[in-house]
Amino acid sequence: MGMANTAKAEQDTTAAARLDVPVVVLSHRAPVQFRREQGKRLIRRGAGGLVTALVGLAGQLDDAVWVCAATTDEDSAAAAEHDGGAVPLVMTAEPTPADGNEADDAPVLGVRLVDVDPEQHEDFYQVVSNPLLWFIQHGLYGLATSPNIGRTERDAYEQGYVPVNEAFADAVAEEVEARGGRALVMLHDYHFYLVADRVRARCPEVVLSHFIHIPWPGPDAWLVLPADIREQILRGLLGNDVVAFHTERFARNFLLCCQELLGLPIDLDTKTVRVGGRVVAARTYPISIDVDALVEMATSDEVEELAAELQRELLPDGQQLLLRVDRTDPSKNIVRGFLAFELLLEQHPELVGTLRFLAFLQPSRLDVPEYSDYLGRIGAIVARVNARHARAGVAPIDLRLQEHYPTAVAAYTLCDAVMVNSLADGMNLVAKEAVTVSRHHAVLCLSESTGAHAELGAFAVTLNPFDIQQQADALYAALTMPARERADRQAAAANVVRGNDVAKWLDAQIADLRLLTGLWSEEPEGPRLAPAARD
Amino acid sequence: MGMANTAKAEQDTTAAARLDVPVVVLSHRAPVQFRREQGKRLIRRGAGGLVTALVGLAGQLDDAVWVCAATTDEDSAAAAEHDGGAVPLVMTAEPTPADGNEADDAPVLGVRLVDVDPEQHEDFYQVVSNPLLWFIQHGLYGLATSPNIGRTERDAYEQGYVPVNEAFADAVAEEVEARGGRALVMLHDYHFYLVADRVRARCPEVVLSHFIHIPWPGPDAWLVLPADIREQILRGLLGNDVVAFHTERFARNFLLCCQELLGLPIDLDTKTVRVGGRVVAARTYPISIDVDALVEMATSDEVEELAAELQRELLPDGQQLLLRVDRTDPSKNIVRGFLAFELLLEQHPELVGTLRFLAFLQPSRLDVPEYSDYLGRIGAIVARVNARHARAGVAPIDLRLQEHYPTAVAAYTLCDAVMVNSLADGMNLVAKEAVTVSRHHAVLCLSESTGAHAELGAFAVTLNPFDIQQQADALYAALTMPARERADRQAAAANVVRGNDVAKWLDAQIADLRLLTGLWSEEPEGPRLAPAARD
Repeated sequence: MGMANTAKAEQDTTAAARLDVPVVVLSHRAPVQFRREQGKRLIRRGAGGLVTALVGLAGQLDDAVWVCAATTDEDSAAAAEHDGGAVPLVMTAEPTPADGNEADDAPVLGVRLVDVDPEQHEDFYQVVSNPLLWFIQHGLYGLATSPNIGRTERDAYEQGYVPVNEAFADAVAEEVEARGGRALVMLHDYHFYLVADRVRARCPEVVLSHFIHIPWPGPDAWLVLPADIREQILRGLLGNDVVAFHTERFARNFLLCCQELLGLPIDLDTKTVRVGGRVVAARTYPISIDVDALVEMATSDEVEELAAELQRELLPDGQQLLLRVDRTDPSKNIVRGFLAFELLLEQHPELVGTLRFLAFLQPSRLDVPEYSDYLGRIGAIVARVNARHARAGVAPIDLRLQEHYPTAVAAYTLCDAVMVNSLADGMNLVAKEAVTVSRHHAVLCLSESTGAHAELGAFAVTLNPFDIQQQADALYAALTMPARERADRQAAAANVVRGNDVAKWLDAQIADLRLLTGLWSEEPEGPRLAPAARD
Repeated sequence: MGMANTAKAEQDTTAAARLDVPVVVLSHRAPVQFRREQGKRLIRRGAGGLVTALVGLAGQLDDAVWVCAATTDEDSAAAAEHDGGAVPLVMTAEPTPADGNEADDAPVLGVRLVDVDPEQHEDFYQVVSNPLLWFIQHGLYGLATSPNIGRTERDAYEQGYVPVNEAFADAVAEEVEARGGRALVMLHDYHFYLVADRVRARCPEVVLSHFIHIPWPGPDAWLVLPADIREQILRGLLGNDVVAFHTERFARNFLLCCQELLGLPIDLDTKTVRVGGRVVAARTYPISIDVDALVEMATSDEVEELAAELQRELLPDGQQLLLRVDRTDPSKNIVRGFLAFELLLEQHPELVGTLRFLAFLQPSRLDVPEYSDYLGRIGAIVARVNARHARAGVAPIDLRLQEHYPTAVAAYTLCDAVMVNSLADGMNLVAKEAVTVSRHHAVLCLSESTGAHAELGAFAVTLNPFDIQQQADALYAALTMPARERADRQAAAANVVRGNDVAKWLDAQIADLRLLTGLWSEEPEGPRLAPAARD
């Protein structure tokens, strides 16, 4: 599917450039952050492939606005200066306010920072989005004992998730209305499941898509939510023309939910569902990375120096390096990764002293008890393995609980194998980054339960995330793989990533959505997508 | 679907009677148990609807044999006396050896008790079947931390589950071969997923069905198993002509697993999957109870006396009675049931002193840590609720950790509401039993995640198993429901159960399978089931 999308994207490389309609993007995270330091306003551009891709898109458009949450006081101040409307910015590396005198091809983007009541936001973000939706969609609950859904969760939904979604839906609808009611709206992720149908109710001619970046499990998993809430979530999403996912499995699961939980007629061949006289399509666009930016960073002086330092520190005598880079999220399956590493050392004692495991882990959501417990489990297993298998004062695991992207990239260039053993993962970009900039032909050890496995599994050593013996065996196979095979696999995987970078991910979506904007010249009534349309 | 099956069963009430082919049944539990007491051999008939139904079938057949596990020394001795072959028994209430001089219509059944190596059986039963398969199929694992699949589990599968399945497959195949290779084989449950394809390999003309009594979750859940094991399980089951479940959801999930995990072409309309030139059908037959036997027991002197005793003990001043009857299995969701009851008393203090909760719980699998932990949680929450809400020395919850079926039936006749809030449950027969013999128009409070909900949900108060506030509200609605509505609902539910009792459950299967035995007059090649055949 990744390949198919890539091919399609290549036919349509100019799809975004030819797009002559306004675009409204919604995501919780903003593409910029406003700060005040020493009395001066600073505007910092956000990191990540999504920002890069969408800012790239904005540069090609006459009219683009990004709706997102205000998170700093200075965000709120900037929004207030524009009466809550969009702040026009020139989105260069260091964004600046646009004053209308920019060159025609300047990448101007309106950024609408929505100020949400802090209590509502807390309920919306800290109770419903995380952990509830995140845990359900990643299958993290031990259902025998959790969650217990009670008034707290119900109130957080009704007094947090719902009004926050309404506020963002209003902001999106206002931007659409300001453009005459016709715009392409691209919603993002699990924070905003209730936005699409509200926007459609106000703006019936809009073209709406919603990209879901995390796994979409089958109907069984959604039974954890009260019936009315899960139905509202599905109905909300069915306000879209397209609901988009990273993999075919997630798209199919979404359709099965519509069938099983709402009783709607679905078609698994055309990947569509009929609702209220409309047809909604589930589509698959595997996200990727900004290859050029990553390669540039990997060859920067900073990263070269960091790599040399890691080499001296960790691999002074030509040791092999196993690497993982993750947030400390239970979905990343870090504890079982260390259990597998422990088995590997026990079953292959010749590796003790010749293999280092650099675990570069960014602490995450420590205010959620499951996450702080999980961090404790990580510390416990690392202590045990290091105590048992230290040689000459050197411990086999180097646990670094910090975030520093250049160091992670330096480690990518150096490592012999990278471990991605997630329980469930929408895509996993570490896998794509590592194979792209590896200089030692790193072997990708990749969980079958990641979105990335659909594209890269053929060139990876596949991991079963629950089977620690299998993971230990797979790591051994990776670390003893003949050099030629390592080189071939890494080159092939890197080729796949280069062939479908994040710009193409976006372009493939735009190309599909453009077909729908073509309907604007016709009657707005009737099905918007032909039920027989195929990918 | 229950209704549809019922209608079909009524057209075919004589399907079993008209069955003129040999039948071989396989289940882990035996229909009889041999014991030796004071030097004498005793033969005790097993309890439960399945035994009743299948013994009833045997009574109508010329030739029926039941293959099962020997569990006592005397079982093994009886099997040895017949060189490991079937022991012929007259299956009256107190079974006796058949000597060939019985009346033509005597219910003679051959019982083949298979002796399994105890270590293999331990691995097969205590590691793979329970907890591994049971936990996966009921969604009980907290996947962030368990299970860790390692050599123990791999060895238990390869050296336990596989050889035990082979031994039972051999026993079944021998019985089929002794009947000229043509027999109807009915396999049962999660212990024997690898039997069907082995039997088919030895006996290509056999007609094979496998009934799965527990939930069949979607593909996501099966990813917990190593890829080779889950594929072997599915391939094993695809040796059948029919794989049967309690609900449409389970049947659909099975087909989706064949598609997603094996890449086989499925048809959700005809509910079939194509494999190796054959067509395998997923079918739905909701199991039921032996209505006549239950009604007889409910009106027995023993149960009448037990009911009077419960009335005096628990309800001396006309209190209302809430009842649950379960094994202490985490899938039964007992702890959340007590949490909901606690909320109910807190939010409706007028119920304190006027409502008793009889929890009749049979301790289960206490050698499995998850189960003994769960029993501890039950004790803890009961202590808290009883300490907080006792009035005049009377605690609201009467927790009875024992099994005594007549007392449970007595409680069915007395109660005002029965709570079945399972997380996941293949069918749940408590729901069917309670509405059948209730004399106080008990309101059935029934989890949407039980198989029974597909048939009885329309007449029940539906429970969301994870939402304790919703459960508390639903219990309140049940306990304050107008008498007329209670009576109407209970009568309607009892009608459904009476209309589809366990004999009809079996007869509907036989009726479908008879069509396949008709193919014995034709070439054994080619598809056995037409892919266009519909339920």
